[in-house]
Amino acid sequence: MKIVIAGLGIIGGSIAKALKKYTDHTIIGINRSRTPIDKALACGAIDSAGSSEDLKTADVLILGTYPDAAVSFVRENAPYINKNCIVTDTSGIKSGICPQLSAIAEEYGFTFVGFHPMAGKEKNGFDVSEADLFLGASAIIIPGSAPQSAVDILASLIRKIGFGKVVFTTPEEHDRMIAFTSQLPHVLACAYVFSPQCPKHDGFSAGSYRDVSRVANINAELWSELFIENKEPLVAEIQTLIDNLTEIQSGIKKGDRTELASILHRAKLIKEALGE
Amino acid sequence: MKIVIAGLGIIGGSIAKALKKYTDHTIIGINRSRTPIDKALACGAIDSAGSSEDLKTADVLILGTYPDAAVSFVRENAPYINKNCIVTDTSGIKSGICPQLSAIAEEYGFTFVGFHPMAGKEKNGFDVSEADLFLGASAIIIPGSAPQSAVDILASLIRKIGFGKVVFTTPEEHDRMIAFTSQLPHVLACAYVFSPQCPKHDGFSAGSYRDVSRVANINAELWSELFIENKEPLVAEIQTLIDNLTEIQSGIKKGDRTELASILHRAKLIKEALGE
Repeated sequence: MKIVIAGLGIIGGSIAKALKKYTDHTIIGINRSRTPIDKALACGAIDSAGSSEDLKTADVLILGTYPDAAVSFVRENAPYINKNCIVTDTSGIKSGICPQLSAIAEEYGFTFVGFHPMAGKEKNGFDVSEADLFLGASAIIIPGSAPQSAVDILASLIRKIGFGKVVFTTPEEHDRMIAFTSQLPHVLACAYVFSPQCPKHDGFSAGSYRDVSRVANINAELWSELFIENKEPLVAEIQTLIDNLTEIQSGIKKGDRTELASILHRAKLIKEALGE
Repeated sequence: MKIVIAGLGIIGGSIAKALKKYTDHTIIGINRSRTPIDKALACGAIDSAGSSEDLKTADVLILGTYPDAAVSFVRENAPYINKNCIVTDTSGIKSGICPQLSAIAEEYGFTFVGFHPMAGKEKNGFDVSEADLFLGASAIIIPGSAPQSAVDILASLIRKIGFGKVVFTTPEEHDRMIAFTSQLPHVLACAYVFSPQCPKHDGFSAGSYRDVSRVANINAELWSELFIENKEPLVAEIQTLIDNLTEIQSGIKKGDRTELASILHRAKLIKEALGE
């Protein structure tokens, strides 16, 4: 197949490298700035630099851009996209963009399937991309109104590049789950490091500080877009966390060890039930 | 030296194993129940099982018990403790117990130095102890009114069993820092997994879920004691976190990307300034 990847950051770059490592497909790279293209060519992550012309013969178009940029790219390039092409994104939010992308696909006669690769790093950009970023990770697919054959082709491609699990869901369920599993940890990592004690932690900290604060080294531009695009579920998750923190705080204030232990023990049971 | 370790859980057990691996001292184990003693003898983590009698000739006594049990043990056994003995604990809180232990030491003529090894696991007990648990970890020493020679002996022993950094502080500063670096991550891991979305996370989660929720598999009995013993600083840290979460939540509700990005960017700057 001829696969065009638009946006060669950590995700687009890693998909390119993984496709070259694990498949024989032809990979074409498109990027707003030239540097990632040159680097991708130099390390063999793409076969060539592409343009809108390549979309006329593409079998798959993968959008590695920020969510809004993905919609803009598809809207601008829709007239060029091959009618047999499967278009997919890699955005961290779905309700805000999948319906728009599906509507454009329907209007122009190609196919759109949503995709969210559950992998990343604290750093961004092509330089930190790697072929094995997705090994064992989860892939979330949003089939929407796409034909099953297109969903199957995308799922097969995703499994080939190393994902360990593929789940299928709706944009709404995706966004509700992601608010909890991914966005809330980023919010709380930032809120956590705002403590006046944080700059003095060295020598007083261990694994639990490191793990909670890790993603506070955040790409502020990307995540502010993701958070606001997923406002309703995320605001609700933050409120749930605040309410639960308040419950534990009240237990500590009250000072009854047995009562506090029974609150904390609920957390242990949840983790154990999950086999974690 | 003759070193007695009272309490062979993950911390006491790991100290015993590390002392046997990295020093030639004689290690005596004391434990409320017999099983850990038998296991420690079987694997060579201790040279023999001890009793109050051994305290008469001990050079160092290390308390591997919960905080309150450490105070009870020293109070009950004070008459037996060698006047030249350096007694140390391994508790996660200090203001609540160091002054009491120092007072008993002064009354009976031995020396007390507080110690908090910044290492652990989600699991507890002798079975998960290991000789290299402390490799590269921080050790916090609370000298209190102990003579410098005793502090130096303890610090030297601590460095020999693998700790990468030794810091010296007061009980109050220790407790304020630990409230942030260790207790707050445990509180928020529990609060986090209380979300109704948690049991459904599989397939929708990655590293940030794993890292934040890891310590929710908590020893409820131990941590409820630690939290309540450190009530004031911890309640304040939880409140700071709630306030910071509320600030980010308000930014998301307002929906101004630039404004939200500037809040999140402050977190990135804090992490970068720390070289993280």
